[in-house]
Amino acid sequence: MKTPVSALLTILLSTGSAFAVNAPLSPATEECISCHLSVNPGILADWEKSRHAKISPMEGLKKPRLERRISAEKVSNELVHTAVGCAECHTVKPERHKDTFEHEGYEVHVVVTPQDCATCHPTEAKQYDQNIMSRAHGNLKNNPVYHSLADSINGIQSFKDMRTILSPPDAETEAESCYYCHGTAVEVKGEKSRETTMDEMVFPVLSGWPNQGVGRLNPDGSMGSCAACHTRHQFSIEMAREPHTCSQCHKGPDVPAYQVYMVSKHGNIYSSLGKEWDFKTVPWMVGRNFTGPTCASCHVSLIITEEGEVVSDRTHRMNNRLPWRIMGLIYAHPHPKSPDTAMIKNNAGLPLPTELTGEPVAEYLIDGKEQENRRKALQRVCLSCHGSAWVDGHWNRFENTLKTTNEMTLAATKILFTAWENGVAQGLAQNESIFNEAIEKKWVEQWLFFANSTRFASAMSGGDYGVFANGRWYLSKNIQEMTDWLELKIKGANTVERRSNND
Amino acid sequence: MKTPVSALLTILLSTGSAFAVNAPLSPATEECISCHLSVNPGILADWEKSRHAKISPMEGLKKPRLERRISAEKVSNELVHTAVGCAECHTVKPERHKDTFEHEGYEVHVVVTPQDCATCHPTEAKQYDQNIMSRAHGNLKNNPVYHSLADSINGIQSFKDMRTILSPPDAETEAESCYYCHGTAVEVKGEKSRETTMDEMVFPVLSGWPNQGVGRLNPDGSMGSCAACHTRHQFSIEMAREPHTCSQCHKGPDVPAYQVYMVSKHGNIYSSLGKEWDFKTVPWMVGRNFTGPTCASCHVSLIITEEGEVVSDRTHRMNNRLPWRIMGLIYAHPHPKSPDTAMIKNNAGLPLPTELTGEPVAEYLIDGKEQENRRKALQRVCLSCHGSAWVDGHWNRFENTLKTTNEMTLAATKILFTAWENGVAQGLAQNESIFNEAIEKKWVEQWLFFANSTRFASAMSGGDYGVFANGRWYLSKNIQEMTDWLELKIKGANTVERRSNND
Amino acid sequence: MKTPVSALLTILLSTGSAFAVNAPLSPATEECISCHLSVNPGILADWEKSRHAKISPMEGLKKPRLERRISAEKVSNELVHTAVGCAECHTVKPERHKDTFEHEGYEVHVVVTPQDCATCHPTEAKQYDQNIMSRAHGNLKNNPVYHSLADSINGIQSFKDMRTILSPPDAETEAESCYYCHGTAVEVKGEKSRETTMDEMVFPVLSGWPNQGVGRLNPDGSMGSCAACHTRHQFSIEMAREPHTCSQCHKGPDVPAYQVYMVSKHGNIYSSLGKEWDFKTVPWMVGRNFTGPTCASCHVSLIITEEGEVVSDRTHRMNNRLPWRIMGLIYAHPHPKSPDTAMIKNNAGLPLPTELTGEPVAEYLIDGKEQENRRKALQRVCLSCHGSAWVDGHWNRFENTLKTTNEMTLAATKILFTAWENGVAQGLAQNESIFNEAIEKKWVEQWLFFANSTRFASAMSGGDYGVFANGRWYLSKNIQEMTDWLELKIKGANTVERRSNND
Repeated sequence: MKTPVSALLTILLSTGSAFAVNAPLSPATEECISCHLSVNPGILADWEKSRHAKISPMEGLKKPRLERRISAEKVSNELVHTAVGCAECHTVKPERHKDTFEHEGYEVHVVVTPQDCATCHPTEAKQYDQNIMSRAHGNLKNNPVYHSLADSINGIQSFKDMRTILSPPDAETEAESCYYCHGTAVEVKGEKSRETTMDEMVFPVLSGWPNQGVGRLNPDGSMGSCAACHTRHQFSIEMAREPHTCSQCHKGPDVPAYQVYMVSKHGNIYSSLGKEWDFKTVPWMVGRNFTGPTCASCHVSLIITEEGEVVSDRTHRMNNRLPWRIMGLIYAHPHPKSPDTAMIKNNAGLPLPTELTGEPVAEYLIDGKEQENRRKALQRVCLSCHGSAWVDGHWNRFENTLKTTNEMTLAATKILFTAWENGVAQGLAQNESIFNEAIEKKWVEQWLFFANSTRFASAMSGGDYGVFANGRWYLSKNIQEMTDWLELKIKGANTVERRSNND
Repeated sequence: MKTPVSALLTILLSTGSAFAVNAPLSPATEECISCHLSVNPGILADWEKSRHAKISPMEGLKKPRLERRISAEKVSNELVHTAVGCAECHTVKPERHKDTFEHEGYEVHVVVTPQDCATCHPTEAKQYDQNIMSRAHGNLKNNPVYHSLADSINGIQSFKDMRTILSPPDAETEAESCYYCHGTAVEVKGEKSRETTMDEMVFPVLSGWPNQGVGRLNPDGSMGSCAACHTRHQFSIEMAREPHTCSQCHKGPDVPAYQVYMVSKHGNIYSSLGKEWDFKTVPWMVGRNFTGPTCASCHVSLIITEEGEVVSDRTHRMNNRLPWRIMGLIYAHPHPKSPDTAMIKNNAGLPLPTELTGEPVAEYLIDGKEQENRRKALQRVCLSCHGSAWVDGHWNRFENTLKTTNEMTLAATKILFTAWENGVAQGLAQNESIFNEAIEKKWVEQWLFFANSTRFASAMSGGDYGVFANGRWYLSKNIQEMTDWLELKIKGANTVERRSNND
Repeated sequence: MKTPVSALLTILLSTGSAFAVNAPLSPATEECISCHLSVNPGILADWEKSRHAKISPMEGLKKPRLERRISAEKVSNELVHTAVGCAECHTVKPERHKDTFEHEGYEVHVVVTPQDCATCHPTEAKQYDQNIMSRAHGNLKNNPVYHSLADSINGIQSFKDMRTILSPPDAETEAESCYYCHGTAVEVKGEKSRETTMDEMVFPVLSGWPNQGVGRLNPDGSMGSCAACHTRHQFSIEMAREPHTCSQCHKGPDVPAYQVYMVSKHGNIYSSLGKEWDFKTVPWMVGRNFTGPTCASCHVSLIITEEGEVVSDRTHRMNNRLPWRIMGLIYAHPHPKSPDTAMIKNNAGLPLPTELTGEPVAEYLIDGKEQENRRKALQRVCLSCHGSAWVDGHWNRFENTLKTTNEMTLAATKILFTAWENGVAQGLAQNESIFNEAIEKKWVEQWLFFANSTRFASAMSGGDYGVFANGRWYLSKNIQEMTDWLELKIKGANTVERRSNND
């Protein structure tokens, strides 16, 4: 069933939508809409609410520089005067897209990529390409240590003759597990004919689809998905500034940023008063548009004061203001220099930024001066609402916590070493997986969950998150449980010797 | 202290409430209000905000069919012209209510039931009666396996002579534990005189009260509580459409639907943009009234497109669009045919829809054709906002995950079997509870928490919820811990043999 | 860079802020703003939105008594006519503040305290001083049992020669761990010169800073921080009434009030409908301004009915309506009489309100009559929206749950006693820490996490929170795991004897 575009526009204009006609639709987009309005009504209605539907790139280019959401200096004539509709994104640069297919007379591609978005947003695409997130697929896939961790989690275990057997994970599991956030490899695997509401049509068959992971490998060779944060088809800056967006990937015990934020004073301010904030204005005025930070205000957004002074620049390289990497790896350490981390090697030959005993591998990591630059850049944001003594006191505690959580990780690592040495577990000494046995999994939780949560709680003032909610309580308990197990395995039961001491 | 009704109405009309006088109060309701305004001011003020207070059934009946919230074709003359007030619900069908008592000249009952609501909403009541939720009380109470699980959780354990003794749970504990959601049996246990602000009055004594569980056994013989979702006394469709309502019962590790939803892209859209959605309009227009799904949009609500086409019908039989039952039982399996599940028997004679080794008991479960009908019905909702390749890819992963989580459950089950066979735990082989020992409880967590969470994460794209937040990480760790324990119990300490292998 | 105050006011008045000029700024505050507008723009913009910026104390004093937010009968002439700005709070009572320093010609102090706020809010300050929260620092610090628990969590463990060594925690860790909520001791440790955007200036050096814990020891000798709940610099009553504020400290497994609330019917009402409530009006009208409770409505706020009757008085002694203390200690027990709990001693000489076997130490605890007063006071709030049978049924279950959770704690305690007696753990019998070994930590979780969560779920109808989410499932599993461990340690492996029984 085709809806004439004029009828559509009548609907659009009559239903109270704030649709503004200063951005005419291109003929191609009109044609897309004429069918997809009934095939995917939710997509259309959602897009109607977007800025893309309301303002042409030309209108965007006229804004004062600080107010611009478009970073291109110039947009080609064929795109600059119309709304950014279906065709503008799904038919751009067709030759670079392996997923391009012929569809009702157009060369359409399914997967819109950062390279497509770069048509109008080149600065953001370029920054993002230097963001460690854009490499999240390869940084996992090409790191044998991390790959072995992933396999031990996603593989299927069976039990026979008092042993477990691990089979490698299938592609479907991997796609919805680690690569859900890290990004899948989306590849064209052929084509397929399908009966549609119109008639039979041919579509490309894609592996790893659907996916919106931050490091997705796209059919045009680019990496990432802007829709990870700027959710299609509103692509709203409001949504990217809301903390819930970051929670899609940063909420679990391995990276509890959102949980910690929500229990912090900052999260409380957001939850209690955020309903009255303006999440859409560019630039974002501290105290005026928002009275407490979200993830974006500290790590991404262009922030100005009431007096028009820039507090921090917009960046899509999100570790620009982060001196330390506090999660995901065994020990906290300075951020890696390159977004590609799979090529890092420590002295023991493992692809890790520290030794298993915690020493950082300096050559791959930013130095103290770069750390200080990043620290200062983030502290400028803090100082908008806090005095210097506050900020210094906070950072002093945070960096102390990196030290203490590294120490608590080291203690657990030494217990594991002892288990390997005594042969009650099979690991490095035996050239075996270091992640697949019960005691090894306790060790993983020490750093991946508990050290990590304690650090996030410290970084963002999460209070109890660093104690009972998933922090020091578990760090301390885990060491005792590992010791208890080790003693039982090596010495057997009825061991009455003192195991711990407080002197 | 009595407030004259006229004074009340003056208050209502003067305080900025949107109280519309096109629904006059019945004399009976006026009389209720005259006292209860001061006795339970919160109830009155809440009800004033309800549609029940503003519109008579007659007004509802005049609406075009798709806009109606009332499914009766006709409402009796004595009810059709007044607001749906206190008396309209609390004095209807008095003879069917064992909790009816004489109160100030009226025959009042305390517990308003689906049968009462059916006066105006018969279609919903009938559908709900076929909903598995309506049988949640009996499905737990009358299933000896499940009852034994409940007792092992709710019973009181004491410790003496190196043994634990389990006493059966008391009624108060049961009422606030499993039956909080499953529904209590509300029964009249006598009557009691009580001094009130008016004078001494006699009230029925009810067991199992208060309760709003979905399978509550009511004093009129009906099952369920509409207030479980349509919270009294606003009974708002808005609230039933908000995901928080479902979270009352679907948030814990045993059924983490809400947790998974909130961390998903869908939940993010809701959390970030939902504040601007219209939760009250009937029917509910996809993309226009809401730009991302809540629980209700996929599983319950009447959804239409901007063009007026029906995407899915309203249903109060909530598994109408669900081919698989993914939670609560040991293995994922096709939904049972009947809402009464306590009469299911597997080949081993246990009241379970699968064998302990996972094979489904086909005769009690819907067949592949019915599964396909339900799958297609749910996919129609998906297709509103997603292309076919997206939807197919998603479902392919989901159904693969049912298979892999069943396999991970089977591995844990085999470990438990081995423990029973070797006598290091006491279970089926010994005709003992299969739920009460430490190793059995680890097995329960394998399916009730971890397999289950992994499936929900897969079903609703919860990302990390299927990995570290409560998914595959725990599935894999639990198997290693169970194996570790088994080996220690059977072989003793100092066992240096390889326990797992990756070949 | 100095901004002339007139320019500031122009900004304030031109940017759509609701800034009302009926509260002129004092010259001192104008001078603060002239620099700090650019130094801390977020603070200024936030404060502009506050009632403090809009209304002078004089305006507040003119309100009818029930509407007043100010409890002083009289405010000194120098403060009563101007807005409550920077200088009004940061330069008041300079002689009592050890953190007072000379700053641009003023005697300024950094830490604003309850004693400062008492200038206008003396009733609240006085009540709060009797609130157990105000003593949270000392109640932890001066209780050797609790201090030993804290040390076992926050101390650094190292591992050598098959033993763990515990070092005492450092001050930074303590400040962001337990004392984050309990409150640090903020002390002046000297002074420090710092380069500022103006020129070099001297500031006091404060230990324990920053902190907003409820029991903070302030440099003026007072205890607590009003900003813990009335977040600076809006100090909004709205925020204090939102449940997120309480979640800052009451969300973890040790005190899951917020988690339980959010999954309860009450929390659902708030989450679904709260966006339309009026959180700012004083007094707070039940059913009219809000249709479901937040933490504040039951425990703190002044609540009235539509008819103007007072349901409950405002109190900042938050256990005024709480007969039982259900968290933080080993067993549930009547609330202590005095907010100072470190001086409590049980018969065994331990600073605990019960024996290790659960018997309450009556002389330090409120008696049954006071419990009944508090129970009735809280029930008056319940009765606003619930009938008597509902309220009685609810409380009956709650108080039964205190009994059963105490019993489940006792069972775990007896297992621990047995471990100590048999020397497989080192505790009271050996004059050793009772918190530092693995089995002891399991015991702590029995009461601090699981009994506690079960009680909160019972108190606030949290359903699954009392079962699988963190309740009875874990209570019952923990006892089995402790027994399993005990048997293994004492008897060794291959023990095939029945360990539990259901008769």
